[in-house]
Amino acid sequence: MIDFSATVAAIATPPGKGGVALIRVTGPEAFAVADKCFRPSRGTPLSLCPPRTAVRGDIVDGEEVVDDGLALLFPAPHSYTGEDTVEITCHGGLLVTRTVLEVILSAGARLASAGEFTRRAYMNGTLSLTEAEGIGSLLEATSRGQLRLSARESRSRLSQALSALHEELVLVMASLYATIDYPEEDLAQLSREDLTQRLTEAQHTMRALLATYKTGRTIAEGIPTVICGRPNVGKSSLYNLLCCEDAAIVTDVAGTTRDVLERTVALGDLTLHLSDTAGIHETEDLVERIGVERSCAKIEESQLVFAVFDASESLTDEDLRLIDALRGTSATVVAILNKWDLPHADMQAVEDAFSHVLTLSAKTGDTAPLALLVRDLFTDGAVQVGQDAILSNARQYASLATALEQLTYALEALAAGVPADVACGDLEAAIGSLSMLDGREVSQEVVDRIFSHFCVGK
Amino acid sequence: MIDFSATVAAIATPPGKGGVALIRVTGPEAFAVADKCFRPSRGTPLSLCPPRTAVRGDIVDGEEVVDDGLALLFPAPHSYTGEDTVEITCHGGLLVTRTVLEVILSAGARLASAGEFTRRAYMNGTLSLTEAEGIGSLLEATSRGQLRLSARESRSRLSQALSALHEELVLVMASLYATIDYPEEDLAQLSREDLTQRLTEAQHTMRALLATYKTGRTIAEGIPTVICGRPNVGKSSLYNLLCCEDAAIVTDVAGTTRDVLERTVALGDLTLHLSDTAGIHETEDLVERIGVERSCAKIEESQLVFAVFDASESLTDEDLRLIDALRGTSATVVAILNKWDLPHADMQAVEDAFSHVLTLSAKTGDTAPLALLVRDLFTDGAVQVGQDAILSNARQYASLATALEQLTYALEALAAGVPADVACGDLEAAIGSLSMLDGREVSQEVVDRIFSHFCVGK
Repeated sequence: MIDFSATVAAIATPPGKGGVALIRVTGPEAFAVADKCFRPSRGTPLSLCPPRTAVRGDIVDGEEVVDDGLALLFPAPHSYTGEDTVEITCHGGLLVTRTVLEVILSAGARLASAGEFTRRAYMNGTLSLTEAEGIGSLLEATSRGQLRLSARESRSRLSQALSALHEELVLVMASLYATIDYPEEDLAQLSREDLTQRLTEAQHTMRALLATYKTGRTIAEGIPTVICGRPNVGKSSLYNLLCCEDAAIVTDVAGTTRDVLERTVALGDLTLHLSDTAGIHETEDLVERIGVERSCAKIEESQLVFAVFDASESLTDEDLRLIDALRGTSATVVAILNKWDLPHADMQAVEDAFSHVLTLSAKTGDTAPLALLVRDLFTDGAVQVGQDAILSNARQYASLATALEQLTYALEALAAGVPADVACGDLEAAIGSLSMLDGREVSQEVVDRIFSHFCVGK
Repeated sequence: MIDFSATVAAIATPPGKGGVALIRVTGPEAFAVADKCFRPSRGTPLSLCPPRTAVRGDIVDGEEVVDDGLALLFPAPHSYTGEDTVEITCHGGLLVTRTVLEVILSAGARLASAGEFTRRAYMNGTLSLTEAEGIGSLLEATSRGQLRLSARESRSRLSQALSALHEELVLVMASLYATIDYPEEDLAQLSREDLTQRLTEAQHTMRALLATYKTGRTIAEGIPTVICGRPNVGKSSLYNLLCCEDAAIVTDVAGTTRDVLERTVALGDLTLHLSDTAGIHETEDLVERIGVERSCAKIEESQLVFAVFDASESLTDEDLRLIDALRGTSATVVAILNKWDLPHADMQAVEDAFSHVLTLSAKTGDTAPLALLVRDLFTDGAVQVGQDAILSNARQYASLATALEQLTYALEALAAGVPADVACGDLEAAIGSLSMLDGREVSQEVVDRIFSHFCVGK
C-alpha cells in the first residue's frame, strides 16, 4: 500500500535531455525538504519567501552546490495536489536532473509513484475523478479533438454537471426521507409533484449526458477504419494521403507487415485507426480466396469502411463483388470515387449501393470533405467539444447508465404511489452510482486502475 | 543569419511525454505574445501581473482553450536571456505541448534555434562565454565530477578570475599609455616598478589557472583507458566491475564488437573511456601476433593502462612479455594484482616494473582504492573542483596560454628598458587574447561553434 501522507518528489518533465527540468515536491514536509536542499541567492530561507514567486538559488547537497535554478512555493490548498508543494526548475541534463532529484530524496522525500501527484489532487478534493481522467487523456492526446475533449473547461464542465445532478438527487432524497421520518410534521419543503418534476428533469439531463458518449468515445478512442477495394483503384494513395496529413503524430502499430498496414492517423479533429487491406478481387485460387475473406473479416471488425473505386474506368466484376460484400456490414461505409480529376465513367451502381459517396482526386489530395463527412457521421453536431460536458470513457458511461436506470425505478415507484421509502432506496442507489462516477465513493481497485495509466511526475 | 532581435519561443524541457512541459518565450515582444495566448483566470492581463509570480490561466488559440497552466513574467534584465521572458508551464503530453508551442508561435514568436536562449544571454551580457560553455557541459555531464566542474559557483569563479585579470591588464596598459602620451606630466598613477610587480602577479595567476587545465580536462573529457593482460587474469571481471559500478550512466559506444569492448564508465568522480583489449599472449602464429600488436597500439593511444596480473599464480612468460611491452609506453600504467583474496605468488617483478601497483579482489569488488589512485594521478589535489576557477576545454587553454606568452613579452620589454609603447603592444595583444577567452571579443565562427552543441530550448 502506498502511504499518501508522506512527502514525495519526482521529475515532472519528460525523461531525457533538455534545457531545463522541473521537479515537484509535495506533502506535509515539502517546504522543510526544500529548505534543506535549496539555498536562495538572497539569503532568506525558501520557506519564508513569498508564495508562488520564483526564487533564484542553488541546489545544494550539504555544502556542495549541485546545480542552480528557480524554486516556487505553492502552500496548501492552492497547489495542484492541494498540499504544500515546491516546484524546482533546474538544468535539464540527464545526470544533473537525476542528481538534483537524489538530493531532494535524501533530504527526506520519497520518490512519487506513477500518477501520485494527480491521485493526491483527487484525494484532497482539488480534482474530481472525471477531471483526473481528463488530465490522463490530455497527456495521451494524439488529435486536436482529443485535446479539446480533455481541455480544462471540458473537464470541469463534466465535473460540474455531475455535481449538480448529485446535489439535486440528494436534495430530493432528503425531502422524501423527511416525509417518512416525520409524517405528521410538514417538514418536506417539496411536494410530491415537485419531487417528480425535479427527478424527471434529472432524468433528461442524464439522458442528454449519456448521448454525448457517442461523440466522446469517437474522439477519445478513435475509429477503427478499413480501406478496401480491388487492386489499383488508389487504395494506397488514399492510405498515404491520410498517413501524411500530419506525419508527426502518425504512429506505427507493432506487427506491421507488408500486407496488413495499420496506422493511427488524424483526420481533421478525429483519430482513425487505419488498416489497408489486401485488394479484394475475384479469384479461383483457394489461397487467394482466403486472403479476400480475411479482408472481409477485417471489415466486420471496423466501424468505418472506405470503399475505393476507380472513377476513370468502368466498374469491373471485382468492384461489383465488393459492393455486394459490403451490403451486409454493420460498419459505416463511405464509397470513394477516386481519380475524379480524370474523365469519369458511369458510377451509378456505386451511388445506388451506398448512402455516403465522395469524390476524391489523389492529385489535389484534399481530405477536408472526407474529414467533414466522417465528423458528421461519427459525432453529434449538437455537442460542442471543448465546451460541453462530455462522457468519454466506458467507466463513466456505465456508471451514469446505471444511475439513470436506478433513477427511473425511483420515478416509477413514485408514480405507482408505493411508499416513499421504496423510491428512497432506488434514489440512494442512483446517488451511489453518481458518486462512483465522480469519485466521491469509488472502490480502491477502480482508483488504482485509473491512476495506473499515469506517468511518474504527474 | 539568425535575427537575434526577434521574439522567440521553444519547449525548454526534454522532448517526450511527461507530466508538465515548460515553454520559454523571450525577446522584446515576449509579453505581448504571451498576452495573446495566455488568459489568466483572475482576469488581469498577464503583462500587468506582478513579475516572477506564478499566474494560473488558460492557453488559448483565439477563443478555444487549448490547455491550462502557469505563466511567469521575467522582465528584462532579470531573466536568463537578459530580455523580457515569459515561462509557461503546460501539460506534458506530446500533442498538447506541441499545440501550445504552435499557439505561441502563431501569436508572433519565431521558433528559437538550438542554444539560442543561452546565446542571447551571452549577447546581452548576463553570461560570459566561459559561463555559457559551462552550462553546455552541465547539460552533457555524465559524472559527478563533471557536474561539479560546471556548477554555477565554478562557472562564475572562472568568469570572475578572467574579469579580474582583464581589468588588471587594462589598468596597467592605461598607466603605460599615460606616460607615453603625456611624458612631462605626472599622470601615471603607478611607477614602473609597480607596473612590473602587478604584471608579474598577473603572470602567476595565469600560470596557476593554466595548471588547472590538467584537472579540468581530465574531468571534462574523461580518460582513455585500456585494460590489458594475458587471458584469464581477470580482465573481464575488472571490466565488468568498472562497468557495473554505476550502470545507469554506462553508455555503449557504437561499433562495440565481441573482441573490442568500449564503454564510458564513472570511476569515482571521473569518467573513463574504457577499452578491453584482446589478451596479450606469446604466439608463433602470425595472425595472432597482429592481434597482440593491435592491443599494444591501443595502449599507445590511451592515457591510462590497467595491467592486470593473476596474483594467485606465478608470473608466466606472457606476463613478463606484457611488463616488457609496457616499459616504453607514455600512458600512466597501474598494475593490478588480481585475485588477491587467494593465496598469492611472488609478484616482485611487477612491483619492480611499475610505480603504481594495486591489489584487487574481484570477490569484494571494491573499486574505491583504484578510484582514489586514478584521481591522484590525473587531477591536482590542490584544485578544488566546484569551488576554484578551472579551465576545462582546449579553447580556453589555448587563449590563456597565448595571453600568458604575450604578457611575458611585455614584461621582458619592460625589463629590457625598451620604450613603453613596445610593451603596450604586447599588453594589448594579451588583453585581446583574454577578451577572446571570455567572449568580450570573439569571432562569429567561434561563437557559432560553441552554441552549435546546445539543444533547442536552452
